[in-house]
Amino acid sequence: MFHRFFDEGLAQASFFLACPRSREAIIIDPRRDVDVYVEIAKSQGLRIAYTFETHVHADFACGSRELAAVGAKTIAGPGAHLRYANHEATHGERLRVGDISIEFMHTPGHTPEHLSILVNQQDQPTRIFSGDTLFVGAVGRPDLLGEDQTRRLAGDLYDSLFKKLLVLDERIQVHPGHGAGSLCGAGIGSEPFTTIGQEKRLNPMLQHKTKEAFVAAVLADLPDTPPYFARMKKMNQEGPPLLGMVNGYRGPAPLSPSATATAIRNGAVLIDLRPAAAFAASHPLGALNLAIGTKVGYWGGYVLPADAKVVLLGANHHETTEAARQLIRIGVSRIDGYINGGFDAWRDAGLPTGSIALSNVQELASAISDGNAPLVIDVRTTKEWNAGHIEGAMHIPLGDLARRAAEIPRDRPVATMCEAGYRSALAASVLSRSGVDGVVNITGGMSAWRALAPAPAAK
Amino acid sequence: MFHRFFDEGLAQASFFLACPRSREAIIIDPRRDVDVYVEIAKSQGLRIAYTFETHVHADFACGSRELAAVGAKTIAGPGAHLRYANHEATHGERLRVGDISIEFMHTPGHTPEHLSILVNQQDQPTRIFSGDTLFVGAVGRPDLLGEDQTRRLAGDLYDSLFKKLLVLDERIQVHPGHGAGSLCGAGIGSEPFTTIGQEKRLNPMLQHKTKEAFVAAVLADLPDTPPYFARMKKMNQEGPPLLGMVNGYRGPAPLSPSATATAIRNGAVLIDLRPAAAFAASHPLGALNLAIGTKVGYWGGYVLPADAKVVLLGANHHETTEAARQLIRIGVSRIDGYINGGFDAWRDAGLPTGSIALSNVQELASAISDGNAPLVIDVRTTKEWNAGHIEGAMHIPLGDLARRAAEIPRDRPVATMCEAGYRSALAASVLSRSGVDGVVNITGGMSAWRALAPAPAAK
Repeated sequence: MFHRFFDEGLAQASFFLACPRSREAIIIDPRRDVDVYVEIAKSQGLRIAYTFETHVHADFACGSRELAAVGAKTIAGPGAHLRYANHEATHGERLRVGDISIEFMHTPGHTPEHLSILVNQQDQPTRIFSGDTLFVGAVGRPDLLGEDQTRRLAGDLYDSLFKKLLVLDERIQVHPGHGAGSLCGAGIGSEPFTTIGQEKRLNPMLQHKTKEAFVAAVLADLPDTPPYFARMKKMNQEGPPLLGMVNGYRGPAPLSPSATATAIRNGAVLIDLRPAAAFAASHPLGALNLAIGTKVGYWGGYVLPADAKVVLLGANHHETTEAARQLIRIGVSRIDGYINGGFDAWRDAGLPTGSIALSNVQELASAISDGNAPLVIDVRTTKEWNAGHIEGAMHIPLGDLARRAAEIPRDRPVATMCEAGYRSALAASVLSRSGVDGVVNITGGMSAWRALAPAPAAK
Repeated sequence: MFHRFFDEGLAQASFFLACPRSREAIIIDPRRDVDVYVEIAKSQGLRIAYTFETHVHADFACGSRELAAVGAKTIAGPGAHLRYANHEATHGERLRVGDISIEFMHTPGHTPEHLSILVNQQDQPTRIFSGDTLFVGAVGRPDLLGEDQTRRLAGDLYDSLFKKLLVLDERIQVHPGHGAGSLCGAGIGSEPFTTIGQEKRLNPMLQHKTKEAFVAAVLADLPDTPPYFARMKKMNQEGPPLLGMVNGYRGPAPLSPSATATAIRNGAVLIDLRPAAAFAASHPLGALNLAIGTKVGYWGGYVLPADAKVVLLGANHHETTEAARQLIRIGVSRIDGYINGGFDAWRDAGLPTGSIALSNVQELASAISDGNAPLVIDVRTTKEWNAGHIEGAMHIPLGDLARRAAEIPRDRPVATMCEAGYRSALAASVLSRSGVDGVVNITGGMSAWRALAPAPAAK
């Protein structure tokens, strides 16, 4: 048995392997909401015997500690120092689980303790679970442990790739820990898996002939680092607080509007999951706008403070439950509940509301040519900003916005802008919450701006 | 082996079963782009021996005819009359494929020839593939074959459910052909599967005590019917034109802007896959705006004419390939190609462009209170319209818009409106293409309108 679970939001893959004879299952890099694995195991009459952590993750809170409650033993890499791990495997160590043969390979680079895991199962192709060492068309980033370690880890990554992985049989299937859109590597492909041979031939990073060229190329193309990454390593080493997910997850609890208002007074952040246009029309005063979809956790990681306590506002319990799962995956598990009755209930209770003005790139272009342009705050990443931006715009990356709101001059109206419109809505809500009045959200972002012909005043 | 494939756009499930000993595989209700099944079979050393069509589908073009090219035999229900089927199974008929035991059950209701398929596999729970008879928390719609058959089919559906399915062992897993969002049933739940026992207890439609009450309830809550449904039954009986998908799919071919312009002159519809804001800023004149995501096929089925020939405009080949797959699934396979270089190439070639004005609900509310409201064309379904709309708006469901464009009075500016903003962008492009000038797209739709407080002039 082999199943791949893919979280679209963080582009994170976990894997479920099982021996049909011994009825033992293994989960590789489990997500924190582990109910999905427990349910499958139950329905198939399997026992989750092990979890393998390929490495100490920086982008998601792992589920191994949760799964200990059903008797799973956790194996991590040498020097991982997970408080809750049962064993640290060394390079070349083997394990047999029923009819599944496992060989652990120590492949440092993305992190020092990183494991790649070679698996043979009956009636299945040989697979290597490469974690964040080797992706489809890309390699892991070596810079998440701080500048002092980056160059050494980049060199280790080269050795792991060229001396340990690429020397394997070319037909072996490679199943990486992430797909396209993850911030754990630059330019990851969208296919779920690849082969050693295909990566040897096509992965641009593996075409470099020397370690020096490889290291230089890896360091020249590093992805963005959201603020919450800094907290995840520690959380994953100590073990994310237990949520009892093995017993299933029913989602956050309903709260009356007044109980919600009390929670907010006590420090909870209200996350409004409605689309940007509905949020703009009216929303609970001070709410952040993280429209439902797959990216609530992903962008939440940029704007939610450490140890955030949150309350949710969505269209229904399905939405708030999905949002809660995504937040739990980035380590935000202090979720007080959701507003029972949604926005209507909040409004009907007479609680305070705010609104955001909406504009678009056509209006912005007119305002610029009329000489009354707003101050455009471009909240995209530095890489996006450098690839082209509106002249006169001010660059404040989304993750820095709350902290740097006071820097924004108030002599003109302030407008937020991003690439496609999701972040500008969130940014407008962040600024509004930070006390900047009259913020305008430019819908459609730079992708719409670039479509204007002739493109006025673009760099 | 058991895999479920889920197409988010049409909320359509297909299933891949295989016997690990005989290496034979079965696909239930394959999608038309069958390369995904062929690749898995290849990678696991399996032969696709059979496809089962639970019924003649109205919402997607099926893949059984494509899979005949790798030797798959097609089994359908009694009276399905698929030209390419090898066999029509009768109620109670059994089949063994390797160690997989199959029993076909004739469960008419959604369609007269509908099969439910009971499967036993080693190391797996007993499953019934219920097609469009029984869903999670819902039942199939019986009205797609025309009014004269609807009431009889609703009665058949009752008999199939109560006398054939609900009498099975309560622990049997039920795997339906659709999930939440499909138009083949009203109120389908989002879980991938259920059990006979759970449906018996919780499915609202199965709580009715008499056939009369059941039939009345089913007929009182019918989903919307997109125009393309009418074409699918015939296409699926004759067999959708062969595309050679068993050999893989590389996506549409690149076209130069001038070759694209020629294709358009020869009758091709240009589909612009960019987000609504970029489309509004500037787009190839006459293009339809179906922003990429999972719903290009779903909404394309509302606006594309029978036998449409299309050209695509997207951000990259990945996008145009995804869009092409979605269109192929709704029977639109005459895809001439995509514009190489995207919108920039079109613009730089000096080819004609158009634009759409954007507005939002705040501006609409002001315009209404100032007495200079535009004529709002509400393009939602009748059910959505009846649940509440803006006073003075004109209701033209999306699927009727091109045909009824001439009815729209031109004494005021025309604005399009939907529920969340996707359809209003598409509708604006449809009207613009139909020669209505100066159309305004109200972004955010009724969901944003309802958030305005106090809601002005809403019904």
